[in-house]
Amino acid sequence: MDIQSAQDLSLAYTPGVAESCRVIAENSEEGYSLTARSNMVAIVTDGTAVLGMGDIGPEAAMPVMEGKSMLFKQFGGVDAFPICLAEKDPDEIVKIIKALEPTFGGVNLEDIAAPRCFEIEERLKKELNIPVFHDDQHGTAIVVYAALINALRFVQKKQSEIKLVVNGAGSAGIAIAKLLLEAGIRNITLVSLEGILCPGEEWMNPSQAKIAELTNLERKQGTLKDAIMGADGFIGVSGPGALTGEMVRTMNRDAIVLAMANPTPEIYPAEALAAGAAVVGTGRSDFPNQVNNVLAFPGIFRGALDSRASDITMEMNLAAARAIAELVTETELNPNYIIPDALDPRVASSVAAAVAEAAAASGVAGIRKLQEVR
Amino acid sequence: MDIQSAQDLSLAYTPGVAESCRVIAENSEEGYSLTARSNMVAIVTDGTAVLGMGDIGPEAAMPVMEGKSMLFKQFGGVDAFPICLAEKDPDEIVKIIKALEPTFGGVNLEDIAAPRCFEIEERLKKELNIPVFHDDQHGTAIVVYAALINALRFVQKKQSEIKLVVNGAGSAGIAIAKLLLEAGIRNITLVSLEGILCPGEEWMNPSQAKIAELTNLERKQGTLKDAIMGADGFIGVSGPGALTGEMVRTMNRDAIVLAMANPTPEIYPAEALAAGAAVVGTGRSDFPNQVNNVLAFPGIFRGALDSRASDITMEMNLAAARAIAELVTETELNPNYIIPDALDPRVASSVAAAVAEAAAASGVAGIRKLQEVR
Repeated sequence: MDIQSAQDLSLAYTPGVAESCRVIAENSEEGYSLTARSNMVAIVTDGTAVLGMGDIGPEAAMPVMEGKSMLFKQFGGVDAFPICLAEKDPDEIVKIIKALEPTFGGVNLEDIAAPRCFEIEERLKKELNIPVFHDDQHGTAIVVYAALINALRFVQKKQSEIKLVVNGAGSAGIAIAKLLLEAGIRNITLVSLEGILCPGEEWMNPSQAKIAELTNLERKQGTLKDAIMGADGFIGVSGPGALTGEMVRTMNRDAIVLAMANPTPEIYPAEALAAGAAVVGTGRSDFPNQVNNVLAFPGIFRGALDSRASDITMEMNLAAARAIAELVTETELNPNYIIPDALDPRVASSVAAAVAEAAAASGVAGIRKLQEVR
Repeated sequence: MDIQSAQDLSLAYTPGVAESCRVIAENSEEGYSLTARSNMVAIVTDGTAVLGMGDIGPEAAMPVMEGKSMLFKQFGGVDAFPICLAEKDPDEIVKIIKALEPTFGGVNLEDIAAPRCFEIEERLKKELNIPVFHDDQHGTAIVVYAALINALRFVQKKQSEIKLVVNGAGSAGIAIAKLLLEAGIRNITLVSLEGILCPGEEWMNPSQAKIAELTNLERKQGTLKDAIMGADGFIGVSGPGALTGEMVRTMNRDAIVLAMANPTPEIYPAEALAAGAAVVGTGRSDFPNQVNNVLAFPGIFRGALDSRASDITMEMNLAAARAIAELVTETELNPNYIIPDALDPRVASSVAAAVAEAAAASGVAGIRKLQEVR
């Protein structure tokens, strides 16, 4: 709207807006149709785990959040606004985001250090009526699962029968393990710099101890070298060079390697392929099979906002991964094309549709009555 | 920026943004040139005093904040983002806005009930390094003073010699009195629904008691009827019909009436003129002399942001008022044109220039070293 006349001004501002205010005051749900809230997502960070740079502070985190806002808009048509907080206490962060709830239709948590990010996300998911999503956890898990679905299609192995190693047991690694378990992959072993996650290991933090109970079926102890032997797949969310060609040679036939450390992967594709891997993906755009979160978050929020979802459930995450994977047809599928291109314009709308459907199926979709809930 | 290629994506997001992050991490001041922060103002409300509707809540306040954002952009080129808070405790609101500081270049407080708004503004002005402005107080005071300057020019009375009544002793009335005192107008009397503000009156709140000490030189007691007798000017930020023709008849010759209750003024212009007033202004666009905050806030923030001001000082407010008044030339000045039109495109840039100059003069302009301050 361009304000050209006194009439325009009286509509866009006082006294015209008063009518919209009155309608929303009677039923706050009306805010979704009368304001921009229904399409507005907060990208919230405390600047403590920014890319590979760690705790660089909220001011310095801003470029990442601005870049993310652009991707939200371009791929998902979502209006995202960066909120960089000068606050590190989880209780205070939760309080702040709760106070911000009336402004937004959803919350995307970003680059918040583990294990703080788990507590913040968990509490917000319980206490807010709008969808909350920690992209570093679930966005990563979704795109990994999408790549894995198609890699397994290519090598013709069943999800329920494979043995997987996830290297890196921070927020991304643990979220990947959780999603894959939910998807029906039973044999997963997590490995951190300290070693294999195994119940009883004293160095584990509470989140690691919890996931250790559900993984590592053989209760192995040791290092990545011990875990990787005989594995069908390696998923790396760790650091440069963590996986050697020698280790790949000890994996099962037709091994899948997703080496997503950025910018230097756990192993370069050429080396992994030379060591016998059948399919290799990385986080980089200059190699085949780029496993990039941008395939997930714009469509996830588009679907959650469109269905007015009150939460983003595990079912919605699984549906998103499957929707991404399905865009690669049987005839297109090959070791260099297991996942759509990061810029493929079909992805976000396919993900959104699947997510909206899953929201309905898991009972979180629909027009929430905010006033009743409060 | 439109993301068309993998190269675009790697620049707009990871790994490209990392370079900007690193530069800001070294010197947070760089955020002003590398991100949108330098032009981004938060419009913060708790929804407790929205237009004439009172405490309608943060969701229902959103249309006002969105309308205000549009005006910020259209008139001042300022990117403003509404922040509607589900929080009423002043301490918590201060904490939240402090935590939001790294995201914004300035804070415009809006529609927060008195006396809470005073405490919040005062603390934020002290504790933040970015400019803070409560428009309901200072924006109103600025446009009132601008109208008064020109009304006095027209009736040829001196600011230092007039006797003024401000009817309404909430946040706007008190802020008007403070600005006019600062401008050199000495004889001001405030009146609320309870009566004339006079030291010792027991019904006064702390803010009223404080301003009572500085006003009401004759220490009058009573009601508006008692205060208005012999006054040169009436400034109404109260309610419909508060001023009668009879009262206007008791005012000094060439009386000035600014009746800004909206949408129904304290007195209609025809009635005030019939009772002998020389100049009448209202808050409405369908009468001459519309006294509207939109003349002030876009230029105030444009000037504060352009000069990288760390505060918005009284001098900057006075400079803004004078800049608005000066746009009406001697030959244009007449009882129906004492203040520029709300849509006059010259206003914001004139105000911005004057405000930036005043920022420099009052020592708050310049590139602040945030890291040193913290």
